[in-house]
Amino acid sequence: MTYCVGMMLDRGLVMMSDTRTNAGVDNISTFNKMHTWEVPGERVFILMSAGNLATTQAVMSTLDERTKAPEHRAPSLLETPSMFQAARLVAETLRDVIAAHESAGPTGDSPFSATLILGGQIDGGPPRLFMIYPEGNFIEAGPDTPFFQIGETKYGRPILVRAYDPEMSFERALKLLLVSFDSTLKANLSVGLPFDFQLYETDTLQLGHRSRINADDPYFHEISSEWGEALKQALDSLPDFKLDT
Amino acid sequence: MTYCVGMMLDRGLVMMSDTRTNAGVDNISTFNKMHTWEVPGERVFILMSAGNLATTQAVMSTLDERTKAPEHRAPSLLETPSMFQAARLVAETLRDVIAAHESAGPTGDSPFSATLILGGQIDGGPPRLFMIYPEGNFIEAGPDTPFFQIGETKYGRPILVRAYDPEMSFERALKLLLVSFDSTLKANLSVGLPFDFQLYETDTLQLGHRSRINADDPYFHEISSEWGEALKQALDSLPDFKLDT
Repeated sequence: MTYCVGMMLDRGLVMMSDTRTNAGVDNISTFNKMHTWEVPGERVFILMSAGNLATTQAVMSTLDERTKAPEHRAPSLLETPSMFQAARLVAETLRDVIAAHESAGPTGDSPFSATLILGGQIDGGPPRLFMIYPEGNFIEAGPDTPFFQIGETKYGRPILVRAYDPEMSFERALKLLLVSFDSTLKANLSVGLPFDFQLYETDTLQLGHRSRINADDPYFHEISSEWGEALKQALDSLPDFKLDT
Repeated sequence: MTYCVGMMLDRGLVMMSDTRTNAGVDNISTFNKMHTWEVPGERVFILMSAGNLATTQAVMSTLDERTKAPEHRAPSLLETPSMFQAARLVAETLRDVIAAHESAGPTGDSPFSATLILGGQIDGGPPRLFMIYPEGNFIEAGPDTPFFQIGETKYGRPILVRAYDPEMSFERALKLLLVSFDSTLKANLSVGLPFDFQLYETDTLQLGHRSRINADDPYFHEISSEWGEALKQALDSLPDFKLDT
């Protein structure tokens, strides 16, 4: 399993992913699920993945190869005229990788499936955020749905729904995401530290701060241990049920 | 879908269930998912169900019939010597009902399946709480796992994990459950009001307060609307992430 969240704020994009991959519970590894491309001053892409690791790595590598030698760049993320075209290119690559493996032999219940979140900005347009499905289609975030989750989405969703605010700072957004990730971590063994995050500030057209939060990160431990107490106090602040006995 | 929680407290049991049943999203109904039996001074049972409605109603009706005429009471919930035997009886009834339908014709992916939560007390023993699987086996709550959820369990789980306290009052437990149910309600259309709850106070050997929380319940609206604000304040109370920029 996996947990990734891509969030659109007034000041830009915040993307966070876990790094655990597993085949059963007795075969776990750490892999980077967040890939970035940039042409400073022109375009920035951040891509996160959930699903079959061979599929998502093939998608990343295919996209990556097409950015290297100029003569191989058609079609390339570095040459798409818009974020919409970039999302289409990523989606087609994903669909093609899945189709190539599914047509190559017997398969079970869509074992090559994967879902992606793509965020970024190309000069001349606003930052945009997409969720890309294994079928090769995609949806875009907007004011009503300003963030996307992929992987194990349920445990960490209520806090995002309640506390998301488009005006918040990157610092607060990272705190919110860590609470959401912590709730998920506590409930699903297949989501695990370290977490990677990437910030992108609107109109800078270059990647912002990127960092990895490791298992021994003191800030994460502080959030994790104090959130329980904060929740209890939140519950205290509401009136108790009144039993008419 | 469904959402039910059975919770063991020092002072007794708290059980809450939603009432929505659905076949697709365009065919929804309201059904009671909480059934009780009592012999005052001797035994009390509270049974909640998630899963195929025909299965769970058949289980309830079968158990119910066996409590009516004394000559049909073998085996009956009203005659089991212990809570363990009661759980076994309910589990066997569930397994038999599922098996009867599965063997009667073609089936898909276990469409007759159901999961139950049984709580109660029989004179001479302590209150006990069980989760009963469609296979006819079951597990019991204990200090490490003092509550069970069935149905759509994920959205409402983090707050239960964080804020559960065995020493809390029934009034606080109901507040906690309503927050958990509200988080679920906001995320899954197939969980819906009204909610039923039943209290049982240890060693009283009679059913405690039972009530239904309807869609226009002012207390529930207060909890639902104020919880968002309380969560934001909880998030405020934690230190923001520090970007070393």
